[in-house]
Amino acid sequence: MSDVVLETLDEAECLRLIAPGGIGRLAFAGRYDLTVLPVNYKLHDGAILFRTAQDSSTDEDLRTGIARAEYRVAFEIDDFDTARREGWSVLVQGPAHHVDSADELAQAQGAGVETWADGGREHFISITPARITGRRIRREHGDS
Amino acid sequence: MSDVVLETLDEAECLRLIAPGGIGRLAFAGRYDLTVLPVNYKLHDGAILFRTAQDSSTDEDLRTGIARAEYRVAFEIDDFDTARREGWSVLVQGPAHHVDSADELAQAQGAGVETWADGGREHFISITPARITGRRIRREHGDS
Repeated sequence: MSDVVLETLDEAECLRLIAPGGIGRLAFAGRYDLTVLPVNYKLHDGAILFRTAQDSSTDEDLRTGIARAEYRVAFEIDDFDTARREGWSVLVQGPAHHVDSADELAQAQGAGVETWADGGREHFISITPARITGRRIRREHGDS
Repeated sequence: MSDVVLETLDEAECLRLIAPGGIGRLAFAGRYDLTVLPVNYKLHDGAILFRTAQDSSTDEDLRTGIARAEYRVAFEIDDFDTARREGWSVLVQGPAHHVDSADELAQAQGAGVETWADGGREHFISITPARITGRRIRREHGDS
């Protein structure tokens, strides 16, 4: 028999879990509707950093939106074991901004953020966490 | 050497990919901010169906929001092979609604939507797709 344990994760634990980078899901209010897209990210200086293209309509949507001051987005990272039905998820909420100053761009390029698509993704976007929350679900196996 | 191929998926292919159900990420405009949460879903009669609890603040946020007519949400499902750097993602956008008529509830219960948490998740929410889009990234290995 197993008991389900639902835990709320503190910010330090959330940051530890998302530190390795990888695939996260970016949610933002697009021109027409709420949009969610997977992107390959890195955690760099406490911010979520990823690259985007200049040429797709969704990316254009995102770039246009971010041009507004305080364009708030949500970024979700998770890892689940579907066989054991255990896992965790972390939600980062905060403003996104274009990385465009020379200094910041050099830092972003140095962070080694990779994109799976080739070429044309030289534009960096950074999310400054305003709120980081997370939860974990796990199972405790008792004697009965 | 490999070439990256980015494909746009048509609705039929998207539906085929998400048909097995599993973990998807729900995005909605919460009371304070955009929120993204993983949920276990089933595709039932062309709609995304999942269960939620009555007792968490986020779920309350979601339930309160859905009480508004035409509460539009986004639901993302993906599958990536990080070693091969290939995968797909599907985005379902549309209104969410509470499953509350007796007839609809009986159908939802019959669909076998499971929740990983025990108990208290007897409330069903359904998303009727207004728009289904998807993309796939794969690599073609040439001779050179």
